[in-house]
Amino acid sequence: MATANLFKNIPKHLPEEWFETLCKTGQVHIERIVSRGHVTAEAYWYDQDWAEWVVLLQGRAVLAYEGRPSITLNPGDYVLIPAHTKHRVEWTQEDADTVWLAVHLLEPPAG
Amino acid sequence: MATANLFKNIPKHLPEEWFETLCKTGQVHIERIVSRGHVTAEAYWYDQDWAEWVVLLQGRAVLAYEGRPSITLNPGDYVLIPAHTKHRVEWTQEDADTVWLAVHLLEPPAG
Repeated sequence: MATANLFKNIPKHLPEEWFETLCKTGQVHIERIVSRGHVTAEAYWYDQDWAEWVVLLQGRAVLAYEGRPSITLNPGDYVLIPAHTKHRVEWTQEDADTVWLAVHLLEPPAG
Repeated sequence: MATANLFKNIPKHLPEEWFETLCKTGQVHIERIVSRGHVTAEAYWYDQDWAEWVVLLQGRAVLAYEGRPSITLNPGDYVLIPAHTKHRVEWTQEDADTVWLAVHLLEPPAG
């Protein structure tokens, strides 16, 4: 029941985007992601077998879905990315840490 | 794939604590909770059959576990409340909206 903080204990050096599991069960994976100007590798699209509910909590980012207009995410903005919806992070703020909270739903959402 | 924001569209009048389902599957329930000075009814303890991962994102609150010292939560603070760990919200900020994001894990977490 220890308390931890989503905005603390971020490594000083982040050569790559940083993924940290906060809680994991058979059906759910709660993850903190910290980006510092990082983007998804060029021409790579995430294509997940499961839906992902994700909220941007700090910083700013641009999320792209294949074949659709990109969307800018500001703190508090959240989206549900259905399984097999190809997506990538096109841009994140360079001079600040962009903090994401992702909830991977290892079965399809009902609604 | 519409974007919504955790800090927006909060009702002007909140006679009671406000619960809003953001995403629900058979195994997970993601919920936004907004408190404005609200606390859990006196002498009532939440006693859930499932674990709850919860983060306070705005405002401030005091969370109590039965038989243990209360903890103060500030923005970004998160806790995992195991199933059947009796808890209640003892205090929330009165002059601001306290925004929580709760992920109810409808099966026990592995670690």
